[in-house]
This record gives sequence, structure tokens and C-alpha cells, in this order.
Amino acid sequence: MTDLERLVAIEDIKQLKARYFRALDTKDWALYAGVFTDDAEIDVRGSTDSTSADEESSAIDGFNDNAVFIGGRAFADYVSEITVGTTTAHHGHMPEIDVLGPTTARGIWAMEDRLWQPETAPFRLMHGWGHYHETYEKRDGKWLIRTMRITKLRNDLS
Amino acid sequence: MTDLERLVAIEDIKQLKARYFRALDTKDWALYAGVFTDDAEIDVRGSTDSTSADEESSAIDGFNDNAVFIGGRAFADYVSEITVGTTTAHHGHMPEIDVLGPTTARGIWAMEDRLWQPETAPFRLMHGWGHYHETYEKRDGKWLIRTMRITKLRNDLS
Amino acid sequence: MTDLERLVAIEDIKQLKARYFRALDTKDWALYAGVFTDDAEIDVRGSTDSTSADEESSAIDGFNDNAVFIGGRAFADYVSEITVGTTTAHHGHMPEIDVLGPTTARGIWAMEDRLWQPETAPFRLMHGWGHYHETYEKRDGKWLIRTMRITKLRNDLS
Repeated sequence: MTDLERLVAIEDIKQLKARYFRALDTKDWALYAGVFTDDAEIDVRGSTDSTSADEESSAIDGFNDNAVFIGGRAFADYVSEITVGTTTAHHGHMPEIDVLGPTTARGIWAMEDRLWQPETAPFRLMHGWGHYHETYEKRDGKWLIRTMRITKLRNDLS
Repeated sequence: MTDLERLVAIEDIKQLKARYFRALDTKDWALYAGVFTDDAEIDVRGSTDSTSADEESSAIDGFNDNAVFIGGRAFADYVSEITVGTTTAHHGHMPEIDVLGPTTARGIWAMEDRLWQPETAPFRLMHGWGHYHETYEKRDGKWLIRTMRITKLRNDLS
Repeated sequence: MTDLERLVAIEDIKQLKARYFRALDTKDWALYAGVFTDDAEIDVRGSTDSTSADEESSAIDGFNDNAVFIGGRAFADYVSEITVGTTTAHHGHMPEIDVLGPTTARGIWAMEDRLWQPETAPFRLMHGWGHYHETYEKRDGKWLIRTMRITKLRNDLS
């Protein structure tokens, strides 16, 4: 690939991930499902790892019981269900995107997320910091998320 | 436009918005005014929308009463006045910049802002999450913000 | 330099700074040391500046007593020592990177950092907002941080 082709791919992937975040926080589930491949492997088991001193592990029972998903549609269905009544703000930072070839790439993003829960939930706010570890594929001219895994540095419940 | 021209425009617009944020938080009002066109339309009515459970709507009376501004100078004058004694930190994230032609573009940015108020204010901190919706124009060889509108996912007063 | 060369340099420097943050928060000290030149000048005296109303200046005695470092190795040794038992999350935002020539550049980044301290520390969390002011050099084909200085808008201890 030329330098220009590499830079175009990187910008396209940055905008792909930007749609991921905007769709998630504005609850545009069709847009959200569409940023993944149909066979995407999405592992969010690490997303509720917590080092908070006041954590009660029971507080997040029910979250991520079955937390490896195949395909954007299945994952969007799951996320839309667990965020009913929840306001969320997810931000990505400082991407390291490595274009491996014309149709494959991988990337790491730093992230911070907040989930403000409804009154009925066992906690008011889940607030986390961590990283996304991802691979991307270009299919039919569009970059999509092929695999996604979340690791957390810290997760606070309050 | 070529791919290269598009990438140059996107990077220029990212640096334009970076100056917007740095000027705002360091209170460099001449720099701040200069990131907008003279006829910019700036709609910040959404910037104090709040879903905070402990919101008292009266707390933000006086904010944004007349919150559509024309031109960078008028807007900078307004912001400089309402932030006397206030420390602010505004961060933009995850741009989706769409270059429409050699001199026009549009973009969406995720954002988070904090305004720490002086003792005399009715609240200590306004802390928000949302999006900027913007258009850009290139005039005399420089990209500038032509329209700006803020929407908030959540805004907390404490 | 051509536009393309400039864009390649900017993306390389963004990924360099991304490694800086990821190495710091995952405590990969070899990676962290390696993002700086051997003769890097690193001035973090501003990193604990605080405007917090409840600050007790004594709380951060011992931090940054000798806070200009020469070389990535010396700085990584220092940071690794002061963060034993500490979880950190540092994020950079909104870079303004100015490529001055084929092997020199400068940049400003907005930033936010959190340091969750161990029980033995005089405070639980240091939470700050500010800017990095940096210069970069390309040596042996790799961009590295040549100088780094931190300024803070606000720093809260709690």
C-alpha cells in the first residue's frame, strides 16, 4: 500500500469508530449494528471489571453473563436491551491503527465510559477507563469492525 | 477533490477545532473569535440541557437567554463575560468530518465539558456530555467554523 | 515537505503519543522510556499545580521535587517509582501538530489525568486537566518526543 492509501484507511477507520460511539450514546441501534461485520466477534467480558474499593460484585450480576457476541445485530440487540432507561457517554481516545493490508487492520483505543442507571438499578453510575482492542476488515468498499475486545484499567460503581 | 486534498482538509479542520478548545479554556478570546467566520451562526441553546436528578432549573437562569449568536466576535464577547471567575475544561472527541467540496465541510464531535464556578454562582460545577454539530467554510485559504450547534446527552449541576 | 509527507508525520506523531499514554497507564515502562529521545527534556513541574479549593499543599509534597528529567529512561524510572500501587488513566485530546521540517515538529495536546492512590497516600485521587507542550524529532526513521512540558488548568485532590 502507498502512504496515501494507508492514511485514507486510518481516517476511514477513525470515522467508523466515531459512528460506533455516536450510535451507542444516541441509541441509533441500526447504525450501531452496521459498524460491525455480520460475523464480528465481540467480547465485552472485560467491560465490567472493577477495582473500585466500594464495589459490590453482586451489583453487576446480570451484566455480561453471555458476553461474547457474534455479529453486529446480536450485539446491538443485547446493548439496546441492557441500556433501556440508561443514559450513556462513551469516548474513545488516542488510536493506534495499524493497516496490515488493503482490507485488514488492527487498532487499540483508550476509552472512558459512563452509564447512568435508572432508579431501579442497584447502582446509579458505572464509570470506567480502559482500552478497546480491535481488528477491522474492508468489505464491499467499507471498513467494519471484525473483532472487538474491551479491557478495563478501573471501573467504579456509585 | 483527490483523497489527499480531502485528508488535508480534515486535518486542517481538526486543528481548527483544537484551537477552538484551547482558546476557550485558556481564555484567549482573540484566538477564539478568530476560529469562526464573521457571519457564523452559533446556537448554544442546547448546552445547558440537563437530565440531572438534582437539577434546579433556576440554577442556570441567565445562561443562554439569548443563545444564538452571529459572528465569532459576538460569541467570544458573550463567553468571555459568562466565564469571568470560572475555570473551564472542554474536550472534543471522535470527529466525523465530511468534506463536501473544496471550501465546504460538515462535522460532528463528541464532547465533555466542565465549568467550575466562582463562589458567588448558584452551583459549583456544570459537567456535561454531548455533541457539536458543525459546518465549515474555507475562506481566504483558511478553514473556519460557519455554523455550530450543541446538543447534550446529560448535564449535571453540583 | 509535501502535503503527504506532512500528513504522514502528523499521524506518526499521534501514534507516538498514543503509545506514551498506553505505556503509562498499562505500566509498560520499557515502551514508555522508548517514546522519548535519550536526551529528552521532560518538565513536569506543572503537573501538580492545583486550584482546588480543598487543596492542602502538603498533600503533594514529595511529588516532583526534582521535576526536570533528561532522557526517557530517567523519566520512566521516576514515574514507575511514584506510581507503585497507583492506577492511572491519562487521556490526550485535540492535537495541534505543526511539522517544522522533515525531522522536527512541535505540538500541543489537551489532557485529563486521574491517579488513584493507594491507601497509604495522603489523598485518594488526583484529577487534573491541562495541556502538554511538546517538540518532536525524527531519529533513525522514528519520531520521538524531544521535549515535554505540562501545564494544568486545574488539579483536584480528593
